[in-house]
Amino acid sequence: MTDLQEKPLSSTPVYDGVLLKVRRDEVRLPDGGTSVREWIDHPGAAAVVPLFPDGTTLLVRQFRYPPRRTFLEVPAGKLDVAGEDPATVARRELEEETGYRAGRLTALGALYPCIGYSNEVIHFFLAEDLTAGERDLSDGEFLEPVPVLLAEAVAQARRGELHDMKTVAALLLAEAHLAGRASKP
Amino acid sequence: MTDLQEKPLSSTPVYDGVLLKVRRDEVRLPDGGTSVREWIDHPGAAAVVPLFPDGTTLLVRQFRYPPRRTFLEVPAGKLDVAGEDPATVARRELEEETGYRAGRLTALGALYPCIGYSNEVIHFFLAEDLTAGERDLSDGEFLEPVPVLLAEAVAQARRGELHDMKTVAALLLAEAHLAGRASKP
Repeated sequence: MTDLQEKPLSSTPVYDGVLLKVRRDEVRLPDGGTSVREWIDHPGAAAVVPLFPDGTTLLVRQFRYPPRRTFLEVPAGKLDVAGEDPATVARRELEEETGYRAGRLTALGALYPCIGYSNEVIHFFLAEDLTAGERDLSDGEFLEPVPVLLAEAVAQARRGELHDMKTVAALLLAEAHLAGRASKP
Repeated sequence: MTDLQEKPLSSTPVYDGVLLKVRRDEVRLPDGGTSVREWIDHPGAAAVVPLFPDGTTLLVRQFRYPPRRTFLEVPAGKLDVAGEDPATVARRELEEETGYRAGRLTALGALYPCIGYSNEVIHFFLAEDLTAGERDLSDGEFLEPVPVLLAEAVAQARRGELHDMKTVAALLLAEAHLAGRASKP
């Protein structure tokens, strides 16, 4: 396997905002040349597929400012700091956004949504044994829970009817996990 | 359905880099309050699942600087300008990265990878009737084509063994499209 690595020569913070931290690095390329990489330094996130005994999941309808449209999404949120336990974040965001507490949480893997310009990684979980807790949205957060059968949400994802990539990935990872569980003797 | 929209009050470019354009907007929230949204203004991208008659696809192994790791990815690239035809970009990136020309391109849908802080949308395509063209990597681009059976790549995605989210989404959209095609009378 070829060595494809790029090595940092310098790293400069170029924007330090409320939400976004942007850095501009000079890097050494595999062929010895140099180039510039601009990237978002992100603490990571957790996303949850809640599952009720009757096969229903909960998505949340939310307006997202950057693309200026409303999405159906799995409940999700950022880690407060890099290194925070993603399972803790998954439980917190699920309860804050939907009002449900997860009795059982299963890790479904982790994916990078924007490898060209962000180090964000999203940790995915299946949440079961749900009990009613307390909904508590963050300041400036407006969203609407939408119950739907998981099988129907998966079909919508496969038909291209859902447009948030983490939601499509989450539903398909949950489906694969549940199929694996069902096929075990 | 509740009105969840946020309306722009002001928009300021805060970083205008080689790759990244970052803006900071003040917005009016649905409850009448105000908040700040920081976001990447991105032209969009296209990603391609190439498919040979024997069921093989081509992934590319590439080091990505922001997460500092190497990924197996579907061939993909940015639109040069917002509004460029995504199919044109898909054909160009496929040939540049793998050396193959697509005789037949099928749109598989579009997904937003980072709705919290970017307006990027990725357009997905299945590429068939492939013929040998000319590989031609951009400056500062280093990658290695990796042939793998599409069915095996899909299985890897479902097992959580691939870590680039657009690649997982692309493979699963391609699989769903091909399953739909196979089931047609």
